[in-house]
Formats: sequence, structure tokens, C-alpha cells
Amino acid sequence: MTAAGDDTRRAWAYLSSVAESPCAPIELLAAELGPVEATAAIKARSVPPQHVAVLDATQARYAVDSSTRDLEIADRIGARLVTRDDPEWPGWSLMALSHADTAARGGEPIALWARGPGRLDEMAASGIGLIGSRAASSYGEHVTSMLASGLAIDGHAVISGGAYGIDGVAHRAALASGGPTMAVMACGIDRDYPAGHARLLAEIAETGLVVSEYPPGTTAAKHRFLTRNRLVAAMSTAIIVVEAGRRSGAANTAAWARKLGRPLGAVPGPVTSATSVGCHRLIADDLAELVTDVPSVLALANPDPTADAGRGATRPTDRLSDDEKRVHDAIPGRGTVTIEEIAFSAGLDVGVVRSALARMDVAGLITTADGGWRLA
Amino acid sequence: MTAAGDDTRRAWAYLSSVAESPCAPIELLAAELGPVEATAAIKARSVPPQHVAVLDATQARYAVDSSTRDLEIADRIGARLVTRDDPEWPGWSLMALSHADTAARGGEPIALWARGPGRLDEMAASGIGLIGSRAASSYGEHVTSMLASGLAIDGHAVISGGAYGIDGVAHRAALASGGPTMAVMACGIDRDYPAGHARLLAEIAETGLVVSEYPPGTTAAKHRFLTRNRLVAAMSTAIIVVEAGRRSGAANTAAWARKLGRPLGAVPGPVTSATSVGCHRLIADDLAELVTDVPSVLALANPDPTADAGRGATRPTDRLSDDEKRVHDAIPGRGTVTIEEIAFSAGLDVGVVRSALARMDVAGLITTADGGWRLA
Repeated sequence: MTAAGDDTRRAWAYLSSVAESPCAPIELLAAELGPVEATAAIKARSVPPQHVAVLDATQARYAVDSSTRDLEIADRIGARLVTRDDPEWPGWSLMALSHADTAARGGEPIALWARGPGRLDEMAASGIGLIGSRAASSYGEHVTSMLASGLAIDGHAVISGGAYGIDGVAHRAALASGGPTMAVMACGIDRDYPAGHARLLAEIAETGLVVSEYPPGTTAAKHRFLTRNRLVAAMSTAIIVVEAGRRSGAANTAAWARKLGRPLGAVPGPVTSATSVGCHRLIADDLAELVTDVPSVLALANPDPTADAGRGATRPTDRLSDDEKRVHDAIPGRGTVTIEEIAFSAGLDVGVVRSALARMDVAGLITTADGGWRLA
Repeated sequence: MTAAGDDTRRAWAYLSSVAESPCAPIELLAAELGPVEATAAIKARSVPPQHVAVLDATQARYAVDSSTRDLEIADRIGARLVTRDDPEWPGWSLMALSHADTAARGGEPIALWARGPGRLDEMAASGIGLIGSRAASSYGEHVTSMLASGLAIDGHAVISGGAYGIDGVAHRAALASGGPTMAVMACGIDRDYPAGHARLLAEIAETGLVVSEYPPGTTAAKHRFLTRNRLVAAMSTAIIVVEAGRRSGAANTAAWARKLGRPLGAVPGPVTSATSVGCHRLIADDLAELVTDVPSVLALANPDPTADAGRGATRPTDRLSDDEKRVHDAIPGRGTVTIEEIAFSAGLDVGVVRSALARMDVAGLITTADGGWRLA
């Protein structure tokens, strides 16, 4: 890594900790100035006028730069900081977040901390989220185990939240089947939370990934679980609620799955079981599809486009926000155009166009050429 | 009962046994000539040319008139013959059958034999069908019992097929809760089928109804189970499949429910249970709604029209066939019209109009006045 590379990395580490992720103002500032200049501007409390919101967002933490320490901790435990500059940045998976409601703590993570040999973008591209109650029944554990094993054997990463109950069983069954699994944490990747899962998390990090948008040392907190849930949904190609009570946290992840356009499945169970009430409600309210086994989960994750053309988000542009669609439409099928031409054609501000182009570039939809932009 | 009444009743009993019910040609002939003349015509092998199909349908049995014996058997066991001339004829419930595919053994029953104090039309008007596998699990029996008790206590007749498994549990639980229950048989009402349910059927007949479209003495046969299933569906305001394996007979009743426009529900269960596979498939394929308890069954049977205006058949005319709708539309909002006027206005044959008017009269949609017809 070059010295410049180190600077950039330290800048991203600083940005990752200077506000609670996600943080749209920081995302926009870094997109415009680059991480190093953005870091300098935040520290100097001097940002371009359109980015003044950054000052409020960073007021509490700007003076403390823990980036060197955080990167050292990551190094020590075999972890790394993954940013949108890295090839493994799961830009495609996170794109849905770029137009999620920020008031509900949507938005892309500032950066991601990853521990383990798994490649983040690839695991997300094949990953299926298995989630459910911490208070799982033996039925729920059995079904989770069956699904996780089958999905792992079929080559799909099993994604969950590392919690007790359904989460833990999903990770364990995937590991037992020799498949990669990803735990998305509501705390730093160096924290063993829950404590009883210290060994499980270490095992996950040996072959798969333990991931967090929070820098090392961050403790689990209630609001971080809700924020983490959106990341589980975004980084999965489909979400399956295996078991959920009437007021389960799984309902929150399910809501994110729907908001982000991810196929959502739910496993039925005995109507006499309190831990199936949430699943039955999702199905009865037409919010989730009923799934019973690995084939039905795979059919949900990869709907046959010939079977039902109107179903699911299968075209790359289906995931774009309205602004991004306008930008996309403003780029002709042949030749290149400048940002200013796109802004004029789409009727959008240059800043908005630049952000949209950056996201669509990461997603591989467009590319730069001859000093302009063209469709990929 | 007058002598003329006896003649009519014997004629209906003859018509009920002279062909395998349902039998559209007999239905049409009786509608045009009345039962006594229809009986005479069949016996004499001399029917109007447009009714020649009756001759084929009655060829095997026309010479044997078992009507007196059948009525005597019915009398002896406290049963009765119910025809479309009787106030308790469930014409409203059976209307859906009048335009069902006759090739698939649809069509209205020629007549119905009923044993028990229950009033046929009233039980059908409030009735909810609970059906499922003969090979029920203890889970299925438990849920059936819970639903049947709750529905009975709520004043709904529990309708089923009198078979082992789910059917038997449904009838028993309704009886235990002091509610009326109706067993629709694939054999004569005097036959105890299955033999092990002799006592149960007798108990059902004490407070509810044992019903069949087959005359006394008719034995159960495979094709009669399929024909019976349509009657269970027609006489229920909603059908709930509590438990069904991959190839359960309940799937046939469920198909009839859909064909006849009856709301169809299915109870989920453990995905590890073979007896829930049929229910899960119905739900996953959007053929049935997921129901878990009495309130969800009642919501299915009586959808709140304010909640979803486009759902369910709530207007009386929703159940009409295309021909019947044309006839209905041809009757003005005020005043009376003749059959010939309706036929001209609707562009239909007088015979078709007459049949349609008869069915709609039974259903209470129209009425005769001043030698013509008007909307009720």
C-alpha cells in the first residue's frame, strides 16, 4: 500500500467514526471532495456551503481522530476497512439504500469493516438472509438448519445477524456444511456480541465474514440493531423469516427487505406456536411469500423470468432511484456525454447528477470514456 | 300433505333416482314440465325433442320406480326429501352450481335427501366447510377441533364430509360445542359410511343434518366422493382446508370452492409435516388465504367490504352466470316484463330465459307480478 493509499484509508477510517453511520452529509461530501479533503474540511470545520449539514453531524466527534487506532485493531484481528474505492465494495447490493429514507436510518454505510477471508461483494451477490427470533423453538431451529445447510451446499452465502436463536443456528449450519456465512453486526467487528457467540463469530471469520459499518470498539446499542437490520436486507438477494413472534425484531428486517425491493419469504409453522405468528402474518398480509424448503427459497431469490414477467426486480435499472433513472435516461445509447449535458437533459443539479453517476459507476451500469460518460 | 303433494313428492323421488345426480337434462325437463309430467314423460320414453338427452340419461333406470320405497325409508329414519319446491331448498347456495361445468360433474343436485332437524337453507347460509385428510395428524385434529368449536359457538354450521380424520373431528367438535353440523354424504343418508362413524352420523342427525343427493340405499363410490365434494363447497360460505397431503381429496373440494367462487382458506403447519404440504401449496400458489384461527376464518367468510371493495362476491348478482346476468339486465328497474320481452331484449332463447328466471326466482332476485317478471 502506498503512502497516498494509507492516507486515503485513514481518511475513510476517520469518516467512518466521525458520525453515526449511515450519514448522508458525509457520503455526499466524500463523493464531492474525496475522502482526504473531506476529512481535512471536517477537522477544519470549513466545508462548502451546500455541505453545511456535515458540521452538525460531526460536531460531537470531529476532534477525536481514532482512525490509526481503529485500523491497527482491524489489522491485529485480521480485519480490514472496505470502502467504495475497493473492488470488493458491494456497491450493487447497497445501491438500494442510496435512495432509502434517511429519517428511518437508511442510506449507504459510510464504510464497512470486514473480518474474514470472504469477499464482500461476492458473498452479498449470492447471499440469502435467514433471520428470526432469538427465542427460537426447536421447530424453528430444525427448519433453519435444514435451509442453511441446503443453501450453503448450493453455493449461497448464508447471511444473518449473529444473534442467539435463528441467527446462530443459520450460521452454524452453513459452517457445518462447509459453506461461507456472513454475520452483520450491530457493534464493532472486534466485539463479541453476544458474548456467548464469541467462538461462533471467530469460526465465521475463519471462512466467511463478520461485517459492520461501525468502527472497532463500537458497542451494541438498540438503534444500531435497527440500522444493522437494513444492512442484512441490503446485502441479501432474498430474506427469509424462519420464525418470528408477534413483536420480533425480524419484522423490522422484513420491512427493510420490502422497502429495498428484496424478495421476502416466510416459513409457516404450527398455528399453535407463538414463534410462528409473525411469519403467518407476513404471509396472510401478502407481505411475504410462503416458503417451505430450499427449492422454494431459491425460486423466490431467482424468480423464473419466463414464469412471471412482472415479478421481482430483474433488470439492473429496476433498483435505481428516480433521480438515477433520469440520469440513466439522459445518457444516449451511443457515444459519451458530459455531466453538464446530462444535468441539462435530465433537469437535475450537477451535484445530484455527479452523485448518481458515482453510484451507477460502482454498480457497473455506466462508465467513463473520452472525458465523458456512456452506458456500460 | 295433499294427494297432489304426494304425487309431486313421489315424482321428485323418482327423478332423484332415475339418473345419477347431477343430471342437467332432468333438471331442464323438470323445470319445463314440472316433476309429475317429467316423470310421466321419462317413463313413457316420450319427451319434447329439445329434451332428448333425458332418454339417454335415464335409459338404465327408467323402468324401476323406487320412489315409494325411498320415501318410506326416509320416513322410517326421520329423513325427508327436499326439492326446489320446498322453502328450505338451498337455492341461493346451489346457484353457483347451475353454471358449473357439467362435464366435471357440476350442476345442481336433482333433489336432496336430508336427515335431521336442521333447516337446509339456513345451515348452508351460515355454514363454513372444514375439510382435510383422512390421515390427519394430531396437530391437524387439534386445530380442527379449535376451529370447529369456535365457529359453532359463533353460530356457524360446521359442514364437512363425515369421513375419518379431519371431517370427523370437525363434526364432533361442533357437536361438543352445542352447534349444528352438516355431513354431506357420498352415499344414501341411510347408509353408515364409513361404518365406524355410524354413531357419529346418528348424533349429527339428532341436532344438525346428514345430507345427500343420492336416494336411500345408494352405496358410496369413488365418483360420488368427487361429486359430493362440489356439494360441500357449494353449501358452505367458505371452505377451510385444515390439513392436506400432497394428493389429498381435500384438493378436489378446494378446486370446487375456487370454481364456485367460495372463499378458500388453508391452515399452515410445520413444513416438516407431510399432511401440511397441500395447505402450503394452496397458499404459496395464491389459491387459498392463510388462516390461523376463528377470527381469520370469519374475516375470510365475511370480508369487510370497506376494507377491500374489490374482494369477494358480495353483491347478489355477482354469483349469476353470464346468461342470468343478461336476463337480469333485461328486466327494467320498474314495472314487469314478459318472458318473450326478456328473451328479445337479452337476445336469448325463451327456454334459456325460463331456466334462468326460475333459478333467480329461487334466489330471491326476481319475482312474478301481473303475469310478468320484475326485480325483487
